[in-house]
Amino acid sequence: MSLDRLIEKIAEKQNPTVAGLDPKLDYVPEYIKKKAFEKYGETLKGAAKALLWFNKELIDALCDIVPAVKPQAAYYEMYGYAGVKTLYKTQEYARSKGMFVITDGKRNDIGSTMEAYAAAHLGKVKVGSEELEPFLGDALTVNGYLGSDGIKPVIKVCNEYDKGMFVLAKTSNPSSGELQDMKIGDRAVYEIMGDMCEEWGKDLMGKYGYSGVGIVAGATYPEQIAILRERLPHTFFLIPGYGAQGASAKDISAAFDKNGFGGIVNSSRGIMCAYQKEKCDEKDFAQAARREAIRMRDEIMGFVNKIELN
Amino acid sequence: MSLDRLIEKIAEKQNPTVAGLDPKLDYVPEYIKKKAFEKYGETLKGAAKALLWFNKELIDALCDIVPAVKPQAAYYEMYGYAGVKTLYKTQEYARSKGMFVITDGKRNDIGSTMEAYAAAHLGKVKVGSEELEPFLGDALTVNGYLGSDGIKPVIKVCNEYDKGMFVLAKTSNPSSGELQDMKIGDRAVYEIMGDMCEEWGKDLMGKYGYSGVGIVAGATYPEQIAILRERLPHTFFLIPGYGAQGASAKDISAAFDKNGFGGIVNSSRGIMCAYQKEKCDEKDFAQAARREAIRMRDEIMGFVNKIELN
Repeated sequence: MSLDRLIEKIAEKQNPTVAGLDPKLDYVPEYIKKKAFEKYGETLKGAAKALLWFNKELIDALCDIVPAVKPQAAYYEMYGYAGVKTLYKTQEYARSKGMFVITDGKRNDIGSTMEAYAAAHLGKVKVGSEELEPFLGDALTVNGYLGSDGIKPVIKVCNEYDKGMFVLAKTSNPSSGELQDMKIGDRAVYEIMGDMCEEWGKDLMGKYGYSGVGIVAGATYPEQIAILRERLPHTFFLIPGYGAQGASAKDISAAFDKNGFGGIVNSSRGIMCAYQKEKCDEKDFAQAARREAIRMRDEIMGFVNKIELN
Repeated sequence: MSLDRLIEKIAEKQNPTVAGLDPKLDYVPEYIKKKAFEKYGETLKGAAKALLWFNKELIDALCDIVPAVKPQAAYYEMYGYAGVKTLYKTQEYARSKGMFVITDGKRNDIGSTMEAYAAAHLGKVKVGSEELEPFLGDALTVNGYLGSDGIKPVIKVCNEYDKGMFVLAKTSNPSSGELQDMKIGDRAVYEIMGDMCEEWGKDLMGKYGYSGVGIVAGATYPEQIAILRERLPHTFFLIPGYGAQGASAKDISAAFDKNGFGGIVNSSRGIMCAYQKEKCDEKDFAQAARREAIRMRDEIMGFVNKIELN
């Protein structure tokens, strides 16, 4: 019902980071694509099989040091329903390796439609007399523009299946301020969204002081991260924008409390494409990802207190 | 690059409505479920096959009178990747019958991730030397909370493939006002979002006075529809909330201009579940849907001028 399972995995690994799995075909080593296309043709299925192979090797190389993965739904939908099958298979493999799965779908809708998204990504659905799991996320990113009608159905499913969510508050992109920084009275839109999350989270409180309703707060806006941390003492932060988007470990440090909790920092391209940056043999891509994940962990832990559960 | 193809189909059918295809298993007649489960078991695949059968019969019964369908992604994701395959097959079938396909996904993200969503739902992707269509939407609903970084990639794809989009402005749900009605200076958030759409639309202007960047404006808020129509003369409205959510044809009339253009009104449950309301034989479900679609068309056209292209 909260993000406690994530927090425990972060403590166990002493690593508040998550590996984003956003596998564009351009990121996948040639030898993998070649084999997949030989077997399945230059088809959406062929692409999807290449992505799955890529993801599995990354998961194998990361699962003992990184607590979570964050597959971005867009990069799977990009390869049609075959790609969406790879999303499922990736979630299944990550779960089998003990990783926490944050499905980055930024889903949003209302009432029974939002219930359908929540059931799809965090819950179960009834088919005849069976109860089945359509996808295998432990948490889902959601967009709160539609207000509580779009959040309450997710809270219900999180309570039932011990899952969590992250609501977009202050996103990491350059134009995020167009709407999110606008002032309504003395609060910016992103602060209002954060305040709503702190409030919604009361129905999903965990045992480590954080609720199951986290927010997304971009590393590229360190000042806003500090403001949000101050305002939202029970809200966990999912922090994109580190690395490729230009933010540093220091930019992120305000998200964390004295026990080393409070946030999880994402890196996608930085980890997935480490082999391209290193210019090492492409067959070494998974170990290059591991080296980058360790470097990132150590850099971030330089600004975060030892993570202690109590 | 605009919504002109939709507008032409509306004029041809003299019908500014769209049939929402939100097929929960509860809405599907028993005899269809029974056959599908006998063949594929009580599995996600069995459910997905039942939905596809249901959708195809609806499309057959509606395609000569209704210009468009709007499959809601949530109800397909709810049945896993098998359900997502049914989304594709539904789009394919609707397209083959000449219907305009609005994929209701409310997708949102930034930069290269939003490019991936746009390619997935409105464009094509490269796999080796092939260019493939992952899904088959003619327009996509999107959420603009992230600002222009989340919209520009969609505009680019719309330009390239002659597609359109609808951005959430004022949604039909009771809590939509929590954020959307808040005032920033003299404008509400939903007006600001609308103004941004009118501006973004300049890059996708069509020949009938409307751009390819539409908005979603809930029928349940007639006063706001009137305000938005006044502010946004080049913006086409996708209007949910008619029927099941309580809005009437009169509530919607302000969306339309003197030539009968300006909006398309959605009904999902009203049409899909007409057979349950009529209490007719469930095998007559598609004809019941047709009767309701005709009733709805005639009711709405009572408040809309004859639709004239010129």
